[in-house]
Amino acid sequence: MLVDICFSPALYPYYKTEQSQLVIVIDVFRATSTICNALYNGAEAIIPVASVQKAQEYKKQGFFVGAERNVQKCDFADAGNSPYDYTYEKVEGKTIVFTTTNGTQAIETALDASEIIIGAFCNINTVVDYCLRQQNNVLLLCSGWNNRFNTEDTLFAGAVAEMLLESEKVSVHSDAVTVARQMWQSAKTDMQKHLSCSEHIERLMLNDLQGDVDFCLTLNNAPVLPIYNKKTKQITAHKIS
Amino acid sequence: MLVDICFSPALYPYYKTEQSQLVIVIDVFRATSTICNALYNGAEAIIPVASVQKAQEYKKQGFFVGAERNVQKCDFADAGNSPYDYTYEKVEGKTIVFTTTNGTQAIETALDASEIIIGAFCNINTVVDYCLRQQNNVLLLCSGWNNRFNTEDTLFAGAVAEMLLESEKVSVHSDAVTVARQMWQSAKTDMQKHLSCSEHIERLMLNDLQGDVDFCLTLNNAPVLPIYNKKTKQITAHKIS
Repeated sequence: MLVDICFSPALYPYYKTEQSQLVIVIDVFRATSTICNALYNGAEAIIPVASVQKAQEYKKQGFFVGAERNVQKCDFADAGNSPYDYTYEKVEGKTIVFTTTNGTQAIETALDASEIIIGAFCNINTVVDYCLRQQNNVLLLCSGWNNRFNTEDTLFAGAVAEMLLESEKVSVHSDAVTVARQMWQSAKTDMQKHLSCSEHIERLMLNDLQGDVDFCLTLNNAPVLPIYNKKTKQITAHKIS
Repeated sequence: MLVDICFSPALYPYYKTEQSQLVIVIDVFRATSTICNALYNGAEAIIPVASVQKAQEYKKQGFFVGAERNVQKCDFADAGNSPYDYTYEKVEGKTIVFTTTNGTQAIETALDASEIIIGAFCNINTVVDYCLRQQNNVLLLCSGWNNRFNTEDTLFAGAVAEMLLESEKVSVHSDAVTVARQMWQSAKTDMQKHLSCSEHIERLMLNDLQGDVDFCLTLNNAPVLPIYNKKTKQITAHKIS
């Protein structure tokens, strides 16, 4: 079982392998945290779409649409990219169409992977348990920001790599994993402090989104396993036995 | 004066800016260390070429050719990618055609930059002094390995960012810079130890190249400033006043 980390969707071609690979798509602030929370609160399924135009088409068909660009909710949408927009009352039983600046693009990038799941701090233990059961090679795919490296996705990737390595069934031969693990080691006791100078925290603070930051940095507060189904093109919560 | 770091040539489109930008191309193991050493030892100029085929054409024209792929010297070439292949006796006064697995590709990637210089630990102070005199925005471009992130180029980028920041004329708003500086801080007292598990060190050790590693991690042992001239398509040593 090999573990690797890809820091940007633009680097995916250089990290995918010919062997089978389970890809974990990560967008801690906030798309993958929000997907987890929506499914945890009973949403039936999420349809990720890469473009705003596509999301608008679904809106006309009557779907509940979550859409965000550059931190802001799109005007036409029912919800933005805040996990708090997806409460039980709003989403229970619904199929949600979802597009965000970075996270949904990352899913599109990895469509050739053997399996795609969704990871964030809010479902980290569930993700790690699933990886250990599957015994597939794992690629942690950071969404970044407009294909730029970001700290929060790398921290999550480092945390998952660390937990998988503790299982002793894992081999690693990647500078990206080494660095992400080091980052996680020095950040894990106080992630908020470690991230205080990061690019995206500043964007979120400018929009008064400290509550979202708190949610997205809390471990295991939405313990579901979202799996992308390539046939239906939907993300649904995997039943955990 | 803005400073940023790009971890891979494949990410360059997301790090270049509309404003003027001085790009520092980095391939610590070993292309940019070797370019510095060749010029320090009196080579007249370096013509970087991206393909082996192009290098072979120059060889037929009688040029001294340095060519490497996957750590090995190419059979047809006069020299490989070891700084020790470029002694005063071999290169003084010569124009050298040079192609390597990663470094020369990175130069091609950045051809639209306002200026391109070559950086490695062996000329780090010269690079920093030049940046401070130019007062241009600086982008540190890591060559990586086949577009994958690597530790050694990132350490050098972190070191340069750190030295520029000490000048207090520099502003930074980049997660990549934050992480690279943290890496440099924890590695600088013993780079060999810090890099002992890195991907590329292992490749070099398999080829008995500890001597090259020692050279490439020594600071200021080839203090020249190689500048790429876009008109002549050659790298020459800038006369330092």
